[in-house]
Amino acid sequence: MNDSPARKILALSGGVGGAKLALGLSSVLPPDALDVVVNTADDFTHLGLHISPDIDTLLYTLSGQNNQELGWGLAGESWQAMDALENLGGETWFRLGDRDLATHLWRSQALAGGLGLAQVTNELATRMGLSTAVHPMTEDSVRTAVHSDEGELPFQEYFVRRQCQPCVSGFEFKGIEAAKPNPAVMRLLRSEQVAGVVICPSNPFVSVDPILRIEGMYHALLAVDAPIIAVSPIVAGMAIKGPAAKMMAELGMPVTALAVAEHYAEQYPGLLNTFVIDQSDATLASDIRSIGIDVAITPTIMKTLQDKQQLARFTLGMMEFQA
Amino acid sequence: MNDSPARKILALSGGVGGAKLALGLSSVLPPDALDVVVNTADDFTHLGLHISPDIDTLLYTLSGQNNQELGWGLAGESWQAMDALENLGGETWFRLGDRDLATHLWRSQALAGGLGLAQVTNELATRMGLSTAVHPMTEDSVRTAVHSDEGELPFQEYFVRRQCQPCVSGFEFKGIEAAKPNPAVMRLLRSEQVAGVVICPSNPFVSVDPILRIEGMYHALLAVDAPIIAVSPIVAGMAIKGPAAKMMAELGMPVTALAVAEHYAEQYPGLLNTFVIDQSDATLASDIRSIGIDVAITPTIMKTLQDKQQLARFTLGMMEFQA
Repeated sequence: MNDSPARKILALSGGVGGAKLALGLSSVLPPDALDVVVNTADDFTHLGLHISPDIDTLLYTLSGQNNQELGWGLAGESWQAMDALENLGGETWFRLGDRDLATHLWRSQALAGGLGLAQVTNELATRMGLSTAVHPMTEDSVRTAVHSDEGELPFQEYFVRRQCQPCVSGFEFKGIEAAKPNPAVMRLLRSEQVAGVVICPSNPFVSVDPILRIEGMYHALLAVDAPIIAVSPIVAGMAIKGPAAKMMAELGMPVTALAVAEHYAEQYPGLLNTFVIDQSDATLASDIRSIGIDVAITPTIMKTLQDKQQLARFTLGMMEFQA
Repeated sequence: MNDSPARKILALSGGVGGAKLALGLSSVLPPDALDVVVNTADDFTHLGLHISPDIDTLLYTLSGQNNQELGWGLAGESWQAMDALENLGGETWFRLGDRDLATHLWRSQALAGGLGLAQVTNELATRMGLSTAVHPMTEDSVRTAVHSDEGELPFQEYFVRRQCQPCVSGFEFKGIEAAKPNPAVMRLLRSEQVAGVVICPSNPFVSVDPILRIEGMYHALLAVDAPIIAVSPIVAGMAIKGPAAKMMAELGMPVTALAVAEHYAEQYPGLLNTFVIDQSDATLASDIRSIGIDVAITPTIMKTLQDKQQLARFTLGMMEFQA
């Protein structure tokens, strides 16, 4: 008999970029050893359906159903409903595939039936055969508003409808003061189970910040007796995926891994133990160390499953995780 | 200048059987000369969507989009969303095709946005290119409950999920006392425009009765100075479509066109001027006349568009409709 509870890794993730590392982690860790807390500030109601883009990206990626050509949505997707909706003059700027619609219908019905988003997400993960726990950061409504040169835009209007074209000046997470953290995440953080925390290479401003700003999250993470390791989403001055680099430029920040590390150090003092940067950014290491964060250098661009597993193993190696 | 308003035909219809005659009428009448008031007591909320099966059958049939092989839904339909929902363990007994889903999403969003069912239906009809006006009987919730040997069943549970297998003992239209008639229908009935009313060969008990029992509908129809002509849904002791014959047997009624005429005569005295029966039921004519309803005899089975147009012209002929 082993009388200590199983050790776990907790990952913080937004959508596509984060899901890649989460997949790497889940594929090298034992079953049930990975929990992922996911940004829900991108969630929105569309066509009467509750859409959770980041959660769905995690679910689809971890279950091997994600569409690798599109970079979002489900593999083998069809678009009959969107075509018919277009014929009706309906809103089709947010492309919901026919198979993807089933997820939103199932979720919306379950929420309308009184289940919370955490339980609904658990159920979906189970029904998709995942052994990784996927946790919404909160069950309450938090909605990112993008402040831009075109005024305030709801996140999906900025991200999908306007394809990140407006110039951003800041972000607001509406409802975040009142939002309660997902109790399952807080329980895990307060347990002795957490062997390490990985902040995935997700957008710091619109994916990771909402998670870290949920009431109690930052302090609960600070109190965890385990390494907290973030992976830079910026490599060689570019974002691997999404608008992070464009946002940094528009916010007047240098587009560097260093600036991401500084953002985390200023906003969440003492949070990061180690910042993982790409080998192409090795020259930034001393500047990052000078703000009190250890640096680890490795290839971080994840194209293949092997890339994802390599980065996962590298990150876990710093945690001395005993599976 | 013609100073009298255009003459119109008003049809009362349920789903498939009624839609056939409505299509015949619309294809022989001038544009804008047909209004159809449609049963909404089969409507229900499913997967969080407002589904109006009879309205959709009318819209799809009149716009030439109906699936003639299945007998319901849209032609060229695909089932990706239902397949994916089945994989999630969701409810798939009510088959919503991918293209059909667009209609329900559009309607549900419009209703959630504050439009009434009448305006939403008008909009859908316009967007599908119809010149026929399609009116829900009411904008209020009326829901048929089937009393059966398996207890009380919501209509779609009886009709689709249980495929009409339970033995019926009666019907209840929940909410009908409080439901207000569609004002556009009442305005039309009170105008001088109505040249005739056609009660389509729809199920008398679950399609036509709900329409006629909406507050004020029967009396407004009685007051119309134009022929009211019903077409029998029972031909040679069988229902052309749906469970009407089975219901009549279970309710202890003879399964005949005569029994349908008697039902209308008892429930709505003085309503019908003429009952159209199939040539195969010609021997019933004198019995029907004996209850005070004229009889007209013609082929009533509508397989081809020509069949539909023939029956439409035959019915209109009795109205001396001047197009």
